[in-house]
Amino acid sequence: MKLAFDKLGGILPAVIQDARSGEILMIGFMNAEAFAATRATGDVTFFSRSRNKLWRKGESSGHTLRVREIRVDCDDDALLVRVDPKGPGVCHEGYRSCFFRRIEPDGSAAIVAERAFDPNAVYGKGSAQ
Amino acid sequence: MKLAFDKLGGILPAVIQDARSGEILMIGFMNAEAFAATRATGDVTFFSRSRNKLWRKGESSGHTLRVREIRVDCDDDALLVRVDPKGPGVCHEGYRSCFFRRIEPDGSAAIVAERAFDPNAVYGKGSAQ
Repeated sequence: MKLAFDKLGGILPAVIQDARSGEILMIGFMNAEAFAATRATGDVTFFSRSRNKLWRKGESSGHTLRVREIRVDCDDDALLVRVDPKGPGVCHEGYRSCFFRRIEPDGSAAIVAERAFDPNAVYGKGSAQ
Repeated sequence: MKLAFDKLGGILPAVIQDARSGEILMIGFMNAEAFAATRATGDVTFFSRSRNKLWRKGESSGHTLRVREIRVDCDDDALLVRVDPKGPGVCHEGYRSCFFRRIEPDGSAAIVAERAFDPNAVYGKGSAQ
């Protein structure tokens, strides 16, 4: 099979789901190299758009994401990666999931999750997540 | 709150999750107008990149997606929409989820779900999904 990296300038969205709980942890992007690295190592590896390089999730925090299964959608332009998270959470703000805020009827964003860890203790300033 | 539509040329990825089962149904993209329409109508509305216009999911099939909750991620550039699906599935190939194929160790894609409906009976040729 061939993934449609061309639709978005060389990257694809990859949604990361906790294989056990079904919780959505985050969305990242993969280019062909990140996808190959994810498959070869079994650790979720993204392409960082801000740093313009491969980013093995958890490379500094130790909170890596072990791949259990990769699914591809019907038009080959999106991935669903089901993982075992190695660590209490994926979010640099200290939450289990990056989706810890709900958009309210008035347009504000309300925090609807509990902090899972202290982000200051885990992430050094300016380090990768 | 302000969504970061600028990071990807005016669109954001939106992952659609069945609010009851937790299953990931699809990933689509929203621009500001699609996001506003989704919030105003309560029906998931995407921006179709191929047709370059708003696309209310299910507008021809009747398989609309009622919004239960919208979450936003930590850097305001991705959405998680938890829905009640009105219909047996979202995929134009007749599956409940567009992620009905698993990528195997040899790189092939194996179908790992059962068809939920007959796509020929639901989708007219060339119609929107």
